[in-house]
Amino acid sequence: MTLTTVLETLDTDRDAALERLFTLLRIPSISTDPAYKPECRRAADHMAADLQSIGFNATIRDTPGHPMVVGHNDSAGPDAAHFLFYGHYDVQPPDPLDLWDTPPFEPRIVTRPDGTAMISASGAQDDKGQLMTFVEACRAWMSTAGKLPVRITIFLEGEEESGSPSLPGFLAGNADELRAEAALVCDTSMWNRDTPAICTGLRGMMSEEITIHAASKDLHSGLFGGPAMNPIRVLAKIVASLHDDEGRVTLPGFYDGVHETTDDVKAQWAALGFDPAEFLGGAGLSVPAGEADRSVMEQLWARPTCEFNGITGGYTGEGFKTVLPAQASTKISCRLVGDQDPHAIRAALRKCVEDMLPADCTVSYIEHGSSGGIALSPDNPSVRRAKTALEDEWGVTAPTIGMGGSIPVVGQFKNLLGMDCLLVGFGLDDDRIHSPNEKYELSSFQRGARSWARILDALSRPAA
Amino acid sequence: MTLTTVLETLDTDRDAALERLFTLLRIPSISTDPAYKPECRRAADHMAADLQSIGFNATIRDTPGHPMVVGHNDSAGPDAAHFLFYGHYDVQPPDPLDLWDTPPFEPRIVTRPDGTAMISASGAQDDKGQLMTFVEACRAWMSTAGKLPVRITIFLEGEEESGSPSLPGFLAGNADELRAEAALVCDTSMWNRDTPAICTGLRGMMSEEITIHAASKDLHSGLFGGPAMNPIRVLAKIVASLHDDEGRVTLPGFYDGVHETTDDVKAQWAALGFDPAEFLGGAGLSVPAGEADRSVMEQLWARPTCEFNGITGGYTGEGFKTVLPAQASTKISCRLVGDQDPHAIRAALRKCVEDMLPADCTVSYIEHGSSGGIALSPDNPSVRRAKTALEDEWGVTAPTIGMGGSIPVVGQFKNLLGMDCLLVGFGLDDDRIHSPNEKYELSSFQRGARSWARILDALSRPAA
Repeated sequence: MTLTTVLETLDTDRDAALERLFTLLRIPSISTDPAYKPECRRAADHMAADLQSIGFNATIRDTPGHPMVVGHNDSAGPDAAHFLFYGHYDVQPPDPLDLWDTPPFEPRIVTRPDGTAMISASGAQDDKGQLMTFVEACRAWMSTAGKLPVRITIFLEGEEESGSPSLPGFLAGNADELRAEAALVCDTSMWNRDTPAICTGLRGMMSEEITIHAASKDLHSGLFGGPAMNPIRVLAKIVASLHDDEGRVTLPGFYDGVHETTDDVKAQWAALGFDPAEFLGGAGLSVPAGEADRSVMEQLWARPTCEFNGITGGYTGEGFKTVLPAQASTKISCRLVGDQDPHAIRAALRKCVEDMLPADCTVSYIEHGSSGGIALSPDNPSVRRAKTALEDEWGVTAPTIGMGGSIPVVGQFKNLLGMDCLLVGFGLDDDRIHSPNEKYELSSFQRGARSWARILDALSRPAA
Repeated sequence: MTLTTVLETLDTDRDAALERLFTLLRIPSISTDPAYKPECRRAADHMAADLQSIGFNATIRDTPGHPMVVGHNDSAGPDAAHFLFYGHYDVQPPDPLDLWDTPPFEPRIVTRPDGTAMISASGAQDDKGQLMTFVEACRAWMSTAGKLPVRITIFLEGEEESGSPSLPGFLAGNADELRAEAALVCDTSMWNRDTPAICTGLRGMMSEEITIHAASKDLHSGLFGGPAMNPIRVLAKIVASLHDDEGRVTLPGFYDGVHETTDDVKAQWAALGFDPAEFLGGAGLSVPAGEADRSVMEQLWARPTCEFNGITGGYTGEGFKTVLPAQASTKISCRLVGDQDPHAIRAALRKCVEDMLPADCTVSYIEHGSSGGIALSPDNPSVRRAKTALEDEWGVTAPTIGMGGSIPVVGQFKNLLGMDCLLVGFGLDDDRIHSPNEKYELSSFQRGARSWARILDALSRPAA
């Protein structure tokens, strides 16, 4: 009956758990912006102290960037199975700030007319709310049973939202300490509000910033317009060339390593009752913009993309300035699947840029990250155990699904530590992560913690 | 001998004249940015007070935007010829601020190793330094002779750098007060450091801001990338489509009303000894980027352009954000020549955008200004008188030249008041107007004032 008691503890401790999450959400740990470096450190310190308070031997580990937090809890005994939980304590820049209904780092509960409630803040879901579901499950096990069902190492990074530059080196340098039977990651979504899911397929990512340089200084568009090369024009031609009229990416070799989705998998997906119109409609859209010959579900779960995440050049303030800019730049990210090679794709992109570069122009690059796609068998023992636990909590079967997003650490766990990842998360598609008014359902937070409490128990038992 | 005495007065009053210019340069009258509205008003007040101090009946005139300054000086007597001097007291935004060697609104003299000196500040040339050459000439005439040689109205606007939205209404509403034999404008450049010039051809401008809207909110590029339309991709295709590979603008009807440069004019230009390599080299460039079958001089003085002055969309800060933006926008300006119709070109641009707009995208526009090109006969009486005066001051013949830039007021004086413009300015091509470290040669300021003192005298005499 221990699990039952743990679940009761989680229920009675709900208000305090929420306040603990709010404390974390109030720290503006924006990893990509150097101005917030001290705040990232503060978030790491906070998490290490919280883990220590529930029996983890937790420490801060310095890196060239933001620190890692590593905590071990061996209360299950030396012979128990060992799992690594991964999460990240950093968040994306919250701009545009004027689109937030309330300040991004002042978390609050917003209650809907139907009585359901959500937690509103930057990081409410991604990943602070999600990672705290696991921490709260551990807390309840420790306070109730005095020990966890399995040996757990909690590993938190602070650079997930800025390309994880320190992660590969840290994994390589601490492989023996971090290697476990499998990794547990809470950074994904449910199938819908009532149905949890286990993600067994993730897209990888190759991200790159490209700056085209022309004149040695900003020029007056009247005095120089005509003879002087305009880098916005050059950049636009490059950006425009990367997709054909059918939505396919034109880079040579881009689709090498992309595998066709099997009919079997397509049939499983069809059974999920995904509604493309509803999905797109939630974003104010109606017509799929990806590869014309692929379904929306394939475009999201099984096909790569090339997206422009930002573009800038010249005068972008209010009003008008007749400047002919010296440079223009864009941030590009390609989501990758199957065996696509991020390094080959980066090289192809750079070659394409250089082939299109006219006289008097030069290019510079900033490399923001490289990770391949990932796939896990639905027959993996951890997947099967988690499926049972989730069904016990939610009363429905948890499907194994794909996800359009990228969690580079999953590929690195596989490549550097030989470790598979069990991806269970409680986000919803309308959580607006990376956007103003990010939220996390209060029920996701509370039932997510209950779900992890059950999964921890299930992981200590034979697979169903 | 009055003129000689006036010129001596200008020479002895140099230091005070420079301090007066500095006082004006210290006012950050950035017209396009609403935050600087009070500073624009302050600049207008300052100029009105200065004109009053030298015998002008000067007043501030409110407009829907920044105020106009109008001052009359009829000391030449009721039968004297009447000229309108036009200038503008506003400046462009000085960003990027980090590229300025010294703060843009703290003017200073920088002396080169060869002893020549320049005035460094935002607006040092465009147009505060230039307009003060005329004011100082008037001041010297008033303090020396007690009167001006001709009747002068000085008319200063504060919205030239932001599209002059209030100007047409103001001209139409005050036509009788402002109409004169000709307008005098000091907003152009010399041929080179030793050779003044009279500008008899100017390009017009059609400027437009285009925003492409796709999703109803910023999206996560992993969760939505593929099926969701990316407005940066749409905007890039539009921007890339506006020029062909030969540098020609592709908008239907764009070249309607563009006249071929006559052989006679080409011969005059050839005699000027313009060096395309030197011109482009000054901006760190070497290959002309305009229409492939036109000379650099034609591209600048006789051919229209379509330039992108700014582009923005998505995340443009440091680092990376995997956002799929809801919108992307660009600021476009077309320089126009001959009889090109800015309204027809705006319509053609909008039609092109709308023809390329995919499903789920909408477009919005901000109209920033419309003015046609302008040309003046070298036989115009004011041109001939000014030519003589400039030759007396500089000891060389002042050529009549074209200019790539646009001074919309010139077209509006012609269309609304039936008045030609005499364009004499003392800028140099390397003055970096609209760019960090804008400067004005100290010699331009001092000999510019002497030149206007002579031109005022010449305008009161029969044409040579």
